[in-house]
Amino acid sequence: MSALGAARIRELTITPIAFRDPPLLNADGVHEPLALRCVLQLALEDGTTVGLGESTGGTVRLERLQVAARVVPGMDVFDTTAIAAAIDAALLPTVPSSHERGWTTSAVEVACLDAQGKLTGRPVSDLLGGAVRDSVPFAAYLFYKWAEHPALDGRPAVPDSWGEALDPAGIVEQARLMRERHGFRDFKLKGGVFPPDEEIAAIRALAEAFPGRPLRLDPNTAWTVETSRYVARELDGVLEYLEDPTATIPGMAEVARTAPMPLATNMCVVAWEHLRPGVEAGAIQVLLTDHHYWGGLRRTRELAAVCEAFGLGLSMHSNSHLGISLAAMTHVAAAIPRLDHSCDTHYPWNSADDIIVPGALELRDGCVKVPTGPGLGVELDPDALERAHRVYVDSGMKSRDDTGYMRRFHPEYVRKLPRW
Amino acid sequence: MSALGAARIRELTITPIAFRDPPLLNADGVHEPLALRCVLQLALEDGTTVGLGESTGGTVRLERLQVAARVVPGMDVFDTTAIAAAIDAALLPTVPSSHERGWTTSAVEVACLDAQGKLTGRPVSDLLGGAVRDSVPFAAYLFYKWAEHPALDGRPAVPDSWGEALDPAGIVEQARLMRERHGFRDFKLKGGVFPPDEEIAAIRALAEAFPGRPLRLDPNTAWTVETSRYVARELDGVLEYLEDPTATIPGMAEVARTAPMPLATNMCVVAWEHLRPGVEAGAIQVLLTDHHYWGGLRRTRELAAVCEAFGLGLSMHSNSHLGISLAAMTHVAAAIPRLDHSCDTHYPWNSADDIIVPGALELRDGCVKVPTGPGLGVELDPDALERAHRVYVDSGMKSRDDTGYMRRFHPEYVRKLPRW
Repeated sequence: MSALGAARIRELTITPIAFRDPPLLNADGVHEPLALRCVLQLALEDGTTVGLGESTGGTVRLERLQVAARVVPGMDVFDTTAIAAAIDAALLPTVPSSHERGWTTSAVEVACLDAQGKLTGRPVSDLLGGAVRDSVPFAAYLFYKWAEHPALDGRPAVPDSWGEALDPAGIVEQARLMRERHGFRDFKLKGGVFPPDEEIAAIRALAEAFPGRPLRLDPNTAWTVETSRYVARELDGVLEYLEDPTATIPGMAEVARTAPMPLATNMCVVAWEHLRPGVEAGAIQVLLTDHHYWGGLRRTRELAAVCEAFGLGLSMHSNSHLGISLAAMTHVAAAIPRLDHSCDTHYPWNSADDIIVPGALELRDGCVKVPTGPGLGVELDPDALERAHRVYVDSGMKSRDDTGYMRRFHPEYVRKLPRW
Repeated sequence: MSALGAARIRELTITPIAFRDPPLLNADGVHEPLALRCVLQLALEDGTTVGLGESTGGTVRLERLQVAARVVPGMDVFDTTAIAAAIDAALLPTVPSSHERGWTTSAVEVACLDAQGKLTGRPVSDLLGGAVRDSVPFAAYLFYKWAEHPALDGRPAVPDSWGEALDPAGIVEQARLMRERHGFRDFKLKGGVFPPDEEIAAIRALAEAFPGRPLRLDPNTAWTVETSRYVARELDGVLEYLEDPTATIPGMAEVARTAPMPLATNMCVVAWEHLRPGVEAGAIQVLLTDHHYWGGLRRTRELAAVCEAFGLGLSMHSNSHLGISLAAMTHVAAAIPRLDHSCDTHYPWNSADDIIVPGALELRDGCVKVPTGPGLGVELDPDALERAHRVYVDSGMKSRDDTGYMRRFHPEYVRKLPRW
């Protein structure tokens, strides 16, 4: 609304991309060989400033971002609240879930803040109250995984440098590799893959291999309340938190009543209207924020304030992502005064195909240094973006389908939550 | 922490000032002829940028601001979170109340944001996500009052242009004057002065004189729970909210159980640690924010998010203030998406002695247009500041004392809460 130095948006360009992903197992099946994202380029009318954003991919999310691209031209890039409201209003008739709309508004907000930072010569963290730490700690995100994507439809098998991890020894070995390559000191295991006792054994093996280090287990709601209570009892004194053992706020609340460790979520409290019921039920003690759906970076700061006011711990969720997202996660995590836990990141699994110019972000000693250049502090590599876009087009993929991909190899596989 | 374009703070100058205040009555007594504030000037090392802030006055608050002035030199003006933490830490040993420390950190944050806006050429509202409205609605703040400050200690009586208001007719006449001079369309009566039935009659007279307009009553905890319930019943359908009828969260919760209208507060929930107990007890339905003690403008945005998440309505509190505060209130109110009620302001009572260059802010049609210049969009008038400082020095005043001043004229007056 400012009459001064208006920085109007000329165009929002959305580029769908695909990049390699290892065969990581979870409660839904297994990651496909390609993961999907969308890259946002928000060009201002000054003809030089371009703000970057990164969002989840797939046709549905892409189409919603294209709705946003029709809404934002002509708006002032500093009016992020009004921009989010305009996009939200445009999506409302076809997207009833505020959580779902949040994925779109969030991606645009990040691109706006990147542009604002470039316009003002300040890093995005400065637009959020300034970084209170020079670097942000991340946790190694451990997965049960196959050694390779099996040969399929004439495509040869696709191995990777991480090897197989299907038992406690494999998980510990993966953790060692993660520590060796990136210096991680905290470890999170994606569970919900094998019977709970096997995953309990894996966590105990990690505790033995890395004594005193924070450990987390996240079965993505694969368990009943009873199973969750059993696992919680078994892992008393071993886990810093147990993440989404079971589904829904009432289910989590039932588990929380007896669990000796805090419960964390990025599944039962994922929109602003879930906060009050989640808190009132005592369902969660730690919230995994994710700026990709909570409304962007400023909203994540606000969410951190809600957590502070209502005594919730704070951690950070991750999906398969590339460097623009990592930069945004790093800036907002740097600006949050009370970050109780290291953040999750899939970055080591996907960074080889990144579409930003190398060098700005590095996962070293388990941390990412907060970029100090203007905006997010990362630069798009146009050739890498074009390559990743071509991979997307050639793939013909429309959405992520961990279950369908698993069934190509194990036709008897059925997605079942809770499974145990 | 940014290495880029560091905008370090050179010096924070605090100027205590005093300005004329009419004899406004409240539950503590009566306003003295002079009100006290402190003006902050935050000079950056660039030698040109100066950020402005305004805080409550008096020796105690002045000394705390001087502690802040020792802490901030050398810090980057964009690091508002770190600056607040540093000031908070410096005050902690001598100021145990986080609410009390908040008065100091808040004033400095506003000065930082003003400086940031000036550095980046953007209005402060843009640093808060952008203004979602061009102008901010305020309510007329009605007071029972004497016609003049009585002659005292050789000083002649000091009349003012507002006249006497000691009964319903006087209050309605004052409301008409407020509407005539500033176009106010909503009305708040400061109560707790006369027996509740007289104040009920005043509200009813306002409702008759201004049918359909939002009305509020604020006795500053002058009533017991029982009296509060009685007044609430009597004013069913007349008040948009009843503000702080009784003290403490449990007391308010008892009133809320039967009150037909929402209860509002700026007295029982005044720090972040009060939010959870206040919400859990169901003590309040509307929160009156005040950037002067909630931590500044960004924290007020965060507080608005808490209110949104927990279903609290949002309004804004005011103390006797001048134009820097009004500008800050206007910027943050403009940036809050869901401002449920018009804001309070004492500005009409005190604006004649303002220390900013006239013209930037005007209360017209009950609204203040959001300044669009860099920063807060107001400029200090050095002569006016010097005059107001000299008035402060000459006054010898150390603190506000509504009760002591009342007792100069009515020695039998005793402060008593609750009184009825």
